[in-house]
Amino acid sequence: DKLVIEERPVPRPHAGEVLICMHASPINPSDLAFLRGVYFKKNLPVVPGIEGSGTVVAAGGGLFGRMLVGRRVACTAPNEGDGTWAEYLVTPAQNCMPLRRSISLEHGAMLVVNPLTAWSLLAMAKRARAIVQTAAAGALGKMIVRLARQRGLVTINIVRREEQVATLRALGAEHVLNSSDADFETRLFEICRAEDARLAFDAVGGEMSGKLLSALSNGGRLIIYGGLANQPCVIDPRMFIVAGKSVEGFHLGRAMRHLRVGQRLNMVRHIQRALGRELQSDIQARVPFAEAVQAIPQYTQNMSTGKVLLM
Amino acid sequence: DKLVIEERPVPRPHAGEVLICMHASPINPSDLAFLRGVYFKKNLPVVPGIEGSGTVVAAGGGLFGRMLVGRRVACTAPNEGDGTWAEYLVTPAQNCMPLRRSISLEHGAMLVVNPLTAWSLLAMAKRARAIVQTAAAGALGKMIVRLARQRGLVTINIVRREEQVATLRALGAEHVLNSSDADFETRLFEICRAEDARLAFDAVGGEMSGKLLSALSNGGRLIIYGGLANQPCVIDPRMFIVAGKSVEGFHLGRAMRHLRVGQRLNMVRHIQRALGRELQSDIQARVPFAEAVQAIPQYTQNMSTGKVLLM
Repeated sequence: DKLVIEERPVPRPHAGEVLICMHASPINPSDLAFLRGVYFKKNLPVVPGIEGSGTVVAAGGGLFGRMLVGRRVACTAPNEGDGTWAEYLVTPAQNCMPLRRSISLEHGAMLVVNPLTAWSLLAMAKRARAIVQTAAAGALGKMIVRLARQRGLVTINIVRREEQVATLRALGAEHVLNSSDADFETRLFEICRAEDARLAFDAVGGEMSGKLLSALSNGGRLIIYGGLANQPCVIDPRMFIVAGKSVEGFHLGRAMRHLRVGQRLNMVRHIQRALGRELQSDIQARVPFAEAVQAIPQYTQNMSTGKVLLM
Repeated sequence: DKLVIEERPVPRPHAGEVLICMHASPINPSDLAFLRGVYFKKNLPVVPGIEGSGTVVAAGGGLFGRMLVGRRVACTAPNEGDGTWAEYLVTPAQNCMPLRRSISLEHGAMLVVNPLTAWSLLAMAKRARAIVQTAAAGALGKMIVRLARQRGLVTINIVRREEQVATLRALGAEHVLNSSDADFETRLFEICRAEDARLAFDAVGGEMSGKLLSALSNGGRLIIYGGLANQPCVIDPRMFIVAGKSVEGFHLGRAMRHLRVGQRLNMVRHIQRALGRELQSDIQARVPFAEAVQAIPQYTQNMSTGKVLLM
């Protein structure tokens, strides 16, 4: 309700920052969590939006910033202050990733949140044979299925609607379960045993986290990276005590801070190569910026058809 | 209700096993969880009892077993089959720890479950400045307070009754909170911030686990080793995602399996030295074996006064 479109002066970049004329910015589940106030917090009022793409039109000083002027970039919002759902964005130069010629500004707008998360989660699965994931029909879920297939990793995918089962099977997913089915828990348990699954990625929270941890083999790890259920996780303590399982979280910002600049650039290079293939995002709608407020319910009502891009 | 005292023939030790004439065996919270069927499981009917002490009277073969004959030992039940609440126990020789002369059979009966757990938990706190613990007024909780003081580690202790606050203060505990107080959560949060607490040991589960994890500093670890609340853990997923915290479990049997024989013997040597001091257990009652069934409610109604020993 509080979201309105406003005219403001074009912001000015300070030292180390750049000014970007924005081309496109997606609505991500993490944006929705931010809007609901259940994710990280910023001082209000503030422009939302975590990622996007555009052309750098000015630099406030600093070598990397000056090198970026005139370049097409993928970018993320600064930790403090206004985000990417705007015509102009000021952000630290290090939040920009120059785009290869083969990457369109539209795909570049979705380069960070999902692809880097998918890539980072798969990096945690290096020694796994099988992984379980919830929200498998979402953009990130599909990327994980494609990357896992490429690496010979079995995926056990959980979706909420019957039509999503077919979508994932078409991608080549080995196991797809509908959490609305009456026998969901039994089947999840059986498949996890058969595949000896010891790693799960969870975007849901609530009761689902407990079901996932119970289904994993002894010593299993549950990585929670989202709370779509908007409910606290409910977990049998014996899973920790007797079965030696554990729960931790994944947050892209934190993961990136632990990377050195070289590691990060190398990752972005790999990701740009895979952006048209394993790390592809579907687009369900391109919405002119003036209609941004109405675009949000359009996305929330059908998140798995594809991203809504604010242009 | 199903617990009865029965006469059975004295069991015979097979190769690698010894026969122990039992002297004493405590009732531990983990025994109660086993009796309720919410901990590990054994084929029924079975003699309960996890630990105890006695004199080895026969060996079924094997060098270590034969060396133990005639020795006073602390012992634990085998993974399968009958436990320590009996006049005679057959168990693998490696489940026996010869007692130093200075240790009475009564104290030897409580050498494993609590002292080894306290010692192992403190080993996880090597780099911590402060630790939080629930069930702090229990035998294990008191051991943790004493060991932590000896190592200059601040303890933040949670108890359920007002008289337990005084007991823990008398041991020199820095912070003691009563979880029944209206401002408990606020004070827990403030103290954890002030002490930058990043590690908590939880014997309770349920809502308490979530409160503990929320109170810890970013990056904090919650180690669950008991489920006294008999309720699933309820945890805000943002604690994992945004705050980078994690939950894992501790189980003595699992921890011991990961130790080499030499490490284990070394640990037992240290523990026997500390058994009269930091690792001391209070005894509230010595109950003749014929009254074992009635002794259980006596212990459950007042667990923090001290152990009930079945003689």
